[in-house]
Amino acid sequence: MRTSNYLLSTLKETPNDAEVVSHQLMLRAGMIRKLASGLYTWLPTGLRVLRKVENIVRQEIDNAGAVETLMPVVQPFELWEETGRSEKMGPELLRFTDRHTRPFVLSPTAEEVITSLVRNEVSSYKQLPLNLYQIQTKFRDERRPRFGVMRAREFCMMDAYSFDIDKESLEKSYQAMHDAYCKAFDRMGLEYRPVLADSGAIGGSGSQEFHVLAESGEDLIAFSTESDYAANIEKAEAAAPVGERAQPTQEMTLVDTPNAKTIAELVEQHDLPIEKTVKTLFVKASDEVDADIIALIIRGDHELNEVKAENLPQVAAPLEMATEEDIRALIGAGPGSLGPVNLTLPFIVDRTVAVMSDFGAGANIDDKHYFGINWGRDVELGQVEDLRNVVEGDPSPCGKGTLMLKRGIEVGHIFQLGNVYSQAMNCGVLGPDGKNVILEMGCYGIGVSRVVASAIEQNHDEHGIIWPDALAPFQVAIVPMNMHKSEEVKQAAETLYAELTAMGIEVLFDDRKERPGVMFSDIELIGIPHTIVIGDRSMKEGNFEYKNRRTGEKTPVAMAEIINHLKQQLA
Amino acid sequence: MRTSNYLLSTLKETPNDAEVVSHQLMLRAGMIRKLASGLYTWLPTGLRVLRKVENIVRQEIDNAGAVETLMPVVQPFELWEETGRSEKMGPELLRFTDRHTRPFVLSPTAEEVITSLVRNEVSSYKQLPLNLYQIQTKFRDERRPRFGVMRAREFCMMDAYSFDIDKESLEKSYQAMHDAYCKAFDRMGLEYRPVLADSGAIGGSGSQEFHVLAESGEDLIAFSTESDYAANIEKAEAAAPVGERAQPTQEMTLVDTPNAKTIAELVEQHDLPIEKTVKTLFVKASDEVDADIIALIIRGDHELNEVKAENLPQVAAPLEMATEEDIRALIGAGPGSLGPVNLTLPFIVDRTVAVMSDFGAGANIDDKHYFGINWGRDVELGQVEDLRNVVEGDPSPCGKGTLMLKRGIEVGHIFQLGNVYSQAMNCGVLGPDGKNVILEMGCYGIGVSRVVASAIEQNHDEHGIIWPDALAPFQVAIVPMNMHKSEEVKQAAETLYAELTAMGIEVLFDDRKERPGVMFSDIELIGIPHTIVIGDRSMKEGNFEYKNRRTGEKTPVAMAEIINHLKQQLA
Repeated sequence: MRTSNYLLSTLKETPNDAEVVSHQLMLRAGMIRKLASGLYTWLPTGLRVLRKVENIVRQEIDNAGAVETLMPVVQPFELWEETGRSEKMGPELLRFTDRHTRPFVLSPTAEEVITSLVRNEVSSYKQLPLNLYQIQTKFRDERRPRFGVMRAREFCMMDAYSFDIDKESLEKSYQAMHDAYCKAFDRMGLEYRPVLADSGAIGGSGSQEFHVLAESGEDLIAFSTESDYAANIEKAEAAAPVGERAQPTQEMTLVDTPNAKTIAELVEQHDLPIEKTVKTLFVKASDEVDADIIALIIRGDHELNEVKAENLPQVAAPLEMATEEDIRALIGAGPGSLGPVNLTLPFIVDRTVAVMSDFGAGANIDDKHYFGINWGRDVELGQVEDLRNVVEGDPSPCGKGTLMLKRGIEVGHIFQLGNVYSQAMNCGVLGPDGKNVILEMGCYGIGVSRVVASAIEQNHDEHGIIWPDALAPFQVAIVPMNMHKSEEVKQAAETLYAELTAMGIEVLFDDRKERPGVMFSDIELIGIPHTIVIGDRSMKEGNFEYKNRRTGEKTPVAMAEIINHLKQQLA
Repeated sequence: MRTSNYLLSTLKETPNDAEVVSHQLMLRAGMIRKLASGLYTWLPTGLRVLRKVENIVRQEIDNAGAVETLMPVVQPFELWEETGRSEKMGPELLRFTDRHTRPFVLSPTAEEVITSLVRNEVSSYKQLPLNLYQIQTKFRDERRPRFGVMRAREFCMMDAYSFDIDKESLEKSYQAMHDAYCKAFDRMGLEYRPVLADSGAIGGSGSQEFHVLAESGEDLIAFSTESDYAANIEKAEAAAPVGERAQPTQEMTLVDTPNAKTIAELVEQHDLPIEKTVKTLFVKASDEVDADIIALIIRGDHELNEVKAENLPQVAAPLEMATEEDIRALIGAGPGSLGPVNLTLPFIVDRTVAVMSDFGAGANIDDKHYFGINWGRDVELGQVEDLRNVVEGDPSPCGKGTLMLKRGIEVGHIFQLGNVYSQAMNCGVLGPDGKNVILEMGCYGIGVSRVVASAIEQNHDEHGIIWPDALAPFQVAIVPMNMHKSEEVKQAAETLYAELTAMGIEVLFDDRKERPGVMFSDIELIGIPHTIVIGDRSMKEGNFEYKNRRTGEKTPVAMAEIINHLKQQLA
């Protein structure tokens, strides 16, 4: 490709509204342009990368035995009523009516469409297992689209759906997709981790997320220092402390704490170690509990894990904290003075709190705390659960090593759905014994456009993007210096361009009448891995210059050797 | 691909609601399934063909120097207001609002989006010419979607947009796209014609349509018998008759014609040659005319060309026929008795009618006609225009040969838009003299999904589809007979499958436990060009059987020679 025939559209300045580095660099490198909030046009350079990701994903998903289809972007709303998901999705599910006022949605995902297809097309267990996928435009009407294509409204996604006769077969299909994801992300040259995940609103049993590790990631991942255990912090188990609770050494005393509304204030003013305090949080209870509010008790320095809390049968989903008004009406004290002693509400205690002794907590009286509380003696312990986020240094729940935390960008997700959708939509086949069997489903997604952004988060420097070879928009750049003045340079550049192109190498030939500095900084910004600089001076010595974007290495290479040199670099 | 791992989904019965053969065969061959009116899921076999078309189109458009982009399916409505096209498109333009009640549309085409992009990204004539395209989902909310993917609401389209500094350069860009279209349709093995076309609602000057010739086509195409002139009947010029008008030989007489409400009745009852009659049609006039209605006069056996009529400045667009009520109110007679003599309205006469003499027409009195009318003597001739559809045998407007008519399916369209959009959206660049120049645009479309259907209309027989090699979902089918009983057959089939696949040939290996008859009819229905039948009987003689789908030829081929034989067939 010649730049003269191309839409390079690089920008010198960093656009104001781009917060994360991938968004900034995708705009500056001429990869995308915003059409409206959360809607982006992919310019030629961006699309070339998007297609690389798409093709690697397609090949690996094909190799896993899935078969490609293409479903409409516009879906009838009635299918979403059949599974009851229209409500769960809320306003992210964009609805509209056609000219005949029939209701439709823009596809955010396709469980309903594919399940409806399979219930019509597949009638016998002999046709299973079957895994159907598509790589297609999706739309989610995000309340606050941000970070460019990282959280856009319209985006490109690979979504696959497996259908199996039983759970054992589903597990095989799931594992095949897990392995295909690993192969795809390996080929892309990304540092990623499959992590245990909460199944969330899609439902079903097991699920894993694939995260590209990057400081800008919106998710926290917990890893074991000594095994390959990794889990989203939403899911990562805080293992129960080992050993017995220490015996009480203090009497329980009621202490005036007029200026301590928070744990931090309490600890500072009363010289109490924070590990000797607890927080008591009031949340809405589910119908299973004979009260509107239930209390959750965690250690003073820990954070409530909202997903773990929400997954408890006693807690209403989605999680809702009680208001100060609610609390005062119930207890007669404010949220800064709550605790388990004399509490008139049901409560659940975190595993770590359950082994504490001689600890401090609110007295359920404004401006007063109890110090020296001990379970059993001062208050009954009751139900104990894992309620908190893990922290660095916690023992790994796998039993080996301790946990460390890193940030990740979720680029893929695999689910064992089970029969949530197939049951709701009556998707079954005749089994070997001639009886109808409701199918076991899996669903699998890769955010193709988000992969592009996450690869940049992981591969850039102060000059721009540094593409892994497999994702680069062009493999090689040819930068001729002052070509419009030197016939020798022009001739050499044209010849090399023709030769590399004939070999099937993707080359960007910068034939603009620009100063070399402008050309170099554009090529660096776009992140082309290998550059050949052609100039009068080095040619007099019989050389071209080879530049490697990632290492920064610059090497003179004999003109006759340049193709061999490139082949080695590309291998 | 093994059928056991695939979704074949062939149907024995022809579905009731499929009117045209491509729709029937696409359903029966398991290529598509209807999700809702005008919305289709592409099953694996259909998608494979769609991708073949898409890839050929992409390669040829790339070769023509265009650069691929990807624009959102969801477009802000405000862009459509900027060009005033929101009204012109009417209810085919599907509108909706997002969660913040901002108005959007589903993209039926992207002139607005691309023009808005280019006005931001391109600032100098040095960046031109530029041709940007995408292959992307489009949506048109057709009032009556029909014929499967031929006239669906959601479809796949290649749309390209060229930007040039002047008309001369635009013509070059246009010609390059014309040639790329020819190469693409040639490679697909389709019988097609580029034909002159009316520019319609998109506006601009020159335009050509590309039609695949097929009896089921919705368009009529006029061809010269002796040149490569071809035009959509909407556009085909009815050349002015050669020679002078004959002198009058009859007096004009008022004749009672009480039972002649139509030309057919008039001709039959009064022994008048139909070529000696005219039809007078009342249509709504434009603001240019000092009357609400204007009359158009064509020969009795001719048809009004509505596009030609609509393009006249005197006629209101869109064309609207006067109602019988309007006509009676104006003339005092019904639509069966209209004619030019004593007509109190302005009228326009077709070129053919202008050279008629001694002809019959309504007398503008119920149940009466004038016979023996002659221009000049009985009524002034006035304005003469080309108003009618051409008919077979008309002289070709190119001057060579006569016209013949064939039906076609429009699969592509190329337009010289000029500055219609660039002017409305102020899309200009700095020219060589430093002054702003509004760009000259071209736009170009190929209905990728429609090409698939049109290829079937042109390539099928009573057994199913007959794919041209370049479009076939699989190049080769392997049909082993009773593989599950014969180890030799199984072994031979597996070996051949492995060999062909390793050679990069796309093979469908029918490994189902089905009767051979079922397998053969599925492979024929799907239309795979080359089939290798592997059976015990022929293997005893050292042969496989080769079957050619198009010729029906069946040949025994020595097992050792089968790969060479296939290579020859595929070459």
